[in-house]
Amino acid sequence: MIDLKSAIRSIPDFPKEGIIFRDITTLLLDPEAFGEAINRMHEFCRKRKVDKIIGIESRGFIFAGALADRIGVGLIPVRKAGKLPGDTIEQTYDLEYGSATIEVHADAISEGDSVVIVDDLIATGGTLEATCKLVERMGGTVAGITALIDLSYLPWHNRLGGYDILSLITYDSE
Amino acid sequence: MIDLKSAIRSIPDFPKEGIIFRDITTLLLDPEAFGEAINRMHEFCRKRKVDKIIGIESRGFIFAGALADRIGVGLIPVRKAGKLPGDTIEQTYDLEYGSATIEVHADAISEGDSVVIVDDLIATGGTLEATCKLVERMGGTVAGITALIDLSYLPWHNRLGGYDILSLITYDSE
Repeated sequence: MIDLKSAIRSIPDFPKEGIIFRDITTLLLDPEAFGEAINRMHEFCRKRKVDKIIGIESRGFIFAGALADRIGVGLIPVRKAGKLPGDTIEQTYDLEYGSATIEVHADAISEGDSVVIVDDLIATGGTLEATCKLVERMGGTVAGITALIDLSYLPWHNRLGGYDILSLITYDSE
Repeated sequence: MIDLKSAIRSIPDFPKEGIIFRDITTLLLDPEAFGEAINRMHEFCRKRKVDKIIGIESRGFIFAGALADRIGVGLIPVRKAGKLPGDTIEQTYDLEYGSATIEVHADAISEGDSVVIVDDLIATGGTLEATCKLVERMGGTVAGITALIDLSYLPWHNRLGGYDILSLITYDSE
């Protein structure tokens, strides 16, 4: 089994001093590591009922595109407010300072849809929790969440504890 | 053959009055149309030497992710300035009013690399032309450009005339 963590590049002080940024672009550039990541996410999806894949802007789109193509289901983009052109449903969530709002097209999810949500990174879990709320408000079910990386030292477990999650790489500390 | 154009939704007055926005999210949501789009882009890539796929932020990531996965090559994200954490090379280009800057990681493309560039939409061609310049400044070759949609009434042909382009859906007028 390929060691996916070794394909991640850690960059100190980005985007600001004291933060170690986990750079996934080195993994994307490595066909073996990228393929293995998609294989494992695909395996997770295969064990669940997946009517649609949700990709979270913007790095989540890379993995969501590959997964939707492999599984043969539709892809739903969840984006920052103001970017989707049709009628949307929005969800606001708290950040460390202030708040953020994400949106999904109002006709993208139908009652009874079972979805898997895909992103690159689970940090505070705020965006993912807001996405789960959007799905459920629209009558859908979250069959699972998958991400390349999770930062287990951040309190995302509190927010996403009730969901079935596959993360491929875990960082226990900065 | 599936009529991909019928899977696109046209939304008047977005993002501002007088603009008809071509919304690709309805195509993404339709597994047959999305699969057919990836099939055709994949066929285009198969006829060329593709060492790496470049995806342009952010909707380009969806198609680039699926193509890199199918072909089994690495994916390089081209992003707006300030978003890539490593050392970057940047390219500035003119917009109708003002300018924009895109970046790529400096170590993403090696001398002699042959790449296909993927985006959702060709409008003025400014971002794609800037991406081609980045590739060539780094010693790479643009084997082709593929996009879901092109707006043939905008002057992108002047900017991208020298490149081999596959667009799947053409709009001749607003």
